[in-house]
Amino acid sequence: MSNPFFKNNGPIKISELLKFVNLNTNNLKDDLEINDVRDLFSAKQDHITFFHSKKYRDFAKKTKASYCLTTEALKNELPKSCKAIIVDNVLLNTSKITALFYPDSINDDFDETTTEISDTKYKNKVNYGRNVLIGSNVSIGSNCKIGHNTIIEKNVVIGDNCSIGSNNVIRNTLIKKNVRILDSCIIGKHGFGFFPIKNKNLRYPHIGIVIVEDNCEIGCANTIDRGSMSNTVIGRNTYLDNQIHIAHNVKIGENSIIAGQVGIAGSSIIGDNVKIGGQAGISGHLKIGNNVEIAGGSGVIKDIPNDLKVMGYPAKNIRQFLRENK
Amino acid sequence: MSNPFFKNNGPIKISELLKFVNLNTNNLKDDLEINDVRDLFSAKQDHITFFHSKKYRDFAKKTKASYCLTTEALKNELPKSCKAIIVDNVLLNTSKITALFYPDSINDDFDETTTEISDTKYKNKVNYGRNVLIGSNVSIGSNCKIGHNTIIEKNVVIGDNCSIGSNNVIRNTLIKKNVRILDSCIIGKHGFGFFPIKNKNLRYPHIGIVIVEDNCEIGCANTIDRGSMSNTVIGRNTYLDNQIHIAHNVKIGENSIIAGQVGIAGSSIIGDNVKIGGQAGISGHLKIGNNVEIAGGSGVIKDIPNDLKVMGYPAKNIRQFLRENK
Amino acid sequence: MSNPFFKNNGPIKISELLKFVNLNTNNLKDDLEINDVRDLFSAKQDHITFFHSKKYRDFAKKTKASYCLTTEALKNELPKSCKAIIVDNVLLNTSKITALFYPDSINDDFDETTTEISDTKYKNKVNYGRNVLIGSNVSIGSNCKIGHNTIIEKNVVIGDNCSIGSNNVIRNTLIKKNVRILDSCIIGKHGFGFFPIKNKNLRYPHIGIVIVEDNCEIGCANTIDRGSMSNTVIGRNTYLDNQIHIAHNVKIGENSIIAGQVGIAGSSIIGDNVKIGGQAGISGHLKIGNNVEIAGGSGVIKDIPNDLKVMGYPAKNIRQFLRENK
Repeated sequence: MSNPFFKNNGPIKISELLKFVNLNTNNLKDDLEINDVRDLFSAKQDHITFFHSKKYRDFAKKTKASYCLTTEALKNELPKSCKAIIVDNVLLNTSKITALFYPDSINDDFDETTTEISDTKYKNKVNYGRNVLIGSNVSIGSNCKIGHNTIIEKNVVIGDNCSIGSNNVIRNTLIKKNVRILDSCIIGKHGFGFFPIKNKNLRYPHIGIVIVEDNCEIGCANTIDRGSMSNTVIGRNTYLDNQIHIAHNVKIGENSIIAGQVGIAGSSIIGDNVKIGGQAGISGHLKIGNNVEIAGGSGVIKDIPNDLKVMGYPAKNIRQFLRENK
Repeated sequence: MSNPFFKNNGPIKISELLKFVNLNTNNLKDDLEINDVRDLFSAKQDHITFFHSKKYRDFAKKTKASYCLTTEALKNELPKSCKAIIVDNVLLNTSKITALFYPDSINDDFDETTTEISDTKYKNKVNYGRNVLIGSNVSIGSNCKIGHNTIIEKNVVIGDNCSIGSNNVIRNTLIKKNVRILDSCIIGKHGFGFFPIKNKNLRYPHIGIVIVEDNCEIGCANTIDRGSMSNTVIGRNTYLDNQIHIAHNVKIGENSIIAGQVGIAGSSIIGDNVKIGGQAGISGHLKIGNNVEIAGGSGVIKDIPNDLKVMGYPAKNIRQFLRENK
Repeated sequence: MSNPFFKNNGPIKISELLKFVNLNTNNLKDDLEINDVRDLFSAKQDHITFFHSKKYRDFAKKTKASYCLTTEALKNELPKSCKAIIVDNVLLNTSKITALFYPDSINDDFDETTTEISDTKYKNKVNYGRNVLIGSNVSIGSNCKIGHNTIIEKNVVIGDNCSIGSNNVIRNTLIKKNVRILDSCIIGKHGFGFFPIKNKNLRYPHIGIVIVEDNCEIGCANTIDRGSMSNTVIGRNTYLDNQIHIAHNVKIGENSIIAGQVGIAGSSIIGDNVKIGGQAGISGHLKIGNNVEIAGGSGVIKDIPNDLKVMGYPAKNIRQFLRENK
């Protein structure tokens, strides 16, 4: 993925990367400079990649990366141009190396780069309230409003004709045109992703961003986390009610309607023209088709094909559910 | 309904209203001045009304309005004193005309009318924290407290002996006496109401308000939306816990108790002495009787008569539910 | 329990306490000074205690308190050294007497003791944002960050190496070392506890605190209430996602993982290494064992032994649930 916001600390010599994950560098011939860590598909010759599951075998066979973190069992799938680096836990070590390239993507401490908007170039361009703060690497379009106490932290692009309410905190987010955000939302913080380790969990980097497409409306008190390796996306003209939680890497299509207190777990993909009733929950890594309707309070734990209406926990065809629950 | 807060842009000539919804004005004899848009029952001679469903036939027959947005199929129910204006989509066109009368009720951009409380007449009357903002058309009773960073936006009345915490945003709300509101609530924003239209939904106006009766307590991080054509009401001595979402037009009775993370969808009416357990959800347009108890986590999808205890999703008699789910 | 934060208004003469709950003082011989109100087990000779349920009979027999609020039916269980004070409603009167000793524990009005952090001794010690407020009786360790608009209200201890984000409100809380709190959390407010009384409920005191142990992470927009008579505790290295509600007196063990929008009702005790999926709810006064996994969306209404995986509402063994819901 392209990454507009996070500073890449590379290049880093392959010997340094190997030492960092406690590996022997004795057999290293050329101490190549590595410019980035990428997935199997998008990695180039000067990148390091990772391969942790048979599912990705077809991508592994064709990867252009020069190095790949993987296991003994998988290493033979890689092309000769790609040297296998054998590790116990591929994802854990990929995480450590990603953190080396993108140290700013681990912790979401408060943004110290902010200044009062009246001390920025937006003083006369934006219609703003009291106590509005603007971080570094922020761009704001024409005809925008930003309400009281809102903090536009670092790495935010806001398009034309956007209205952002009060008490919001936004970072690492690309907001397109004609977007309305009401009050007290938190957008672009890292997701709930870490390796559980006794006494001291290890957070993994979140180098993705949040993208809010044209004409969206985001209600009050929503939390939308940025992606880990990909982005979190809210599609064009999709409306969110209040107190909704959208986890990392979730992608929601166009013209969808999501009612209050809905929760969507990490990496699920929601289609176009989808309606989700209040308090419904959607598990992680699912695919919800176009024109799907999910009744309020439902718990979705498997994929839903296009055009289906579902209800219940676990969610099933709504007719079946209502027949079984008269 | 009476509307204490939204400025009425009328009178507007009937010819302008017709042109606005793309209708022919050729057959218009008198170009009457229209002062308001009201429902069939409360409309007076100088008002325009709307009639979209047979359900309201009895009101239609007796309406005093001079004009009524309706359909070919329904127009014959109207009295002779009321001229039918035939449109494809009654609610959509009613919405557009309501927006003409009440342009401020569409968008909930941040309130630009606010000033620091220390620059208002409440400087020596209210016990207030840092960075408290007060909008236009605000009235605050005696012996009140308002916490840090709270924004009392336009159109708010606060009665005597109220304690309002920090980080709240309140607009279009009537708070009576002895009310406590803790922190980070958002009260009086428009509800989640719009006509879904591909690429660009059309918001409908919310000209209702929120009313919080005497002795209520509102916990932390709640969202209470104002009504669209009627009000949202929290009855006397009703207590709300944290992270609750109350949608537009909901009415809750007296002495009720609502636990954390409950959601009540639009236009539902909850009785007196009702207890709702944590995370329960109530669908829209339902009627919940007095003395009802709804167990935590339940999903209520139909009306509940007085004095019943329910549980489950869909919620049913609690004894039946527990018997079936041993 | 030891109470580091709430000022004890005692000693109070027993005659005053009796008058306050409308009891006759004619038969009183010695007008003893009472220093505190405690539970049966921890009360000392100069304390008053309460005994309202047979369940606590064994503690009652051995209490060291000189006075005990109780009923006719229970009074004979008390030792001779403890004088029974017979009341209609033990808990209600205990609540009133607790409020006499700890008047600050009833209402959670905004904290008027706060000052700008730049006017405190933490000016050069803490890395802080704009508009940060610090209340009385606050202690902050070394190498800490506090984000914009955060209010550290009275009675807060923050250990070393803590990162606290923006827009938080924290009071009556003990935060240990290496803790991260993201944005818009409200921690340490009183729980949802009161005696329902027509027209005017009676709040009971919350003299407990919140304890967040070392290495915890608390996400965005969480609410964690302080305890009533005991504390609310988040165990070491436990991670909370966003929009979670933790009610009063809840205790969560070590190394646990709690996903978004979970709610845990009052006084439940959660073990170590527990995983709770998104939107799950746990009723009050339950005991959840170690290594338990609760699937997202589940509703737990009874105790769960160690090492069990559960799902559903009511939650049951996950294999059974999935078999029954194919």
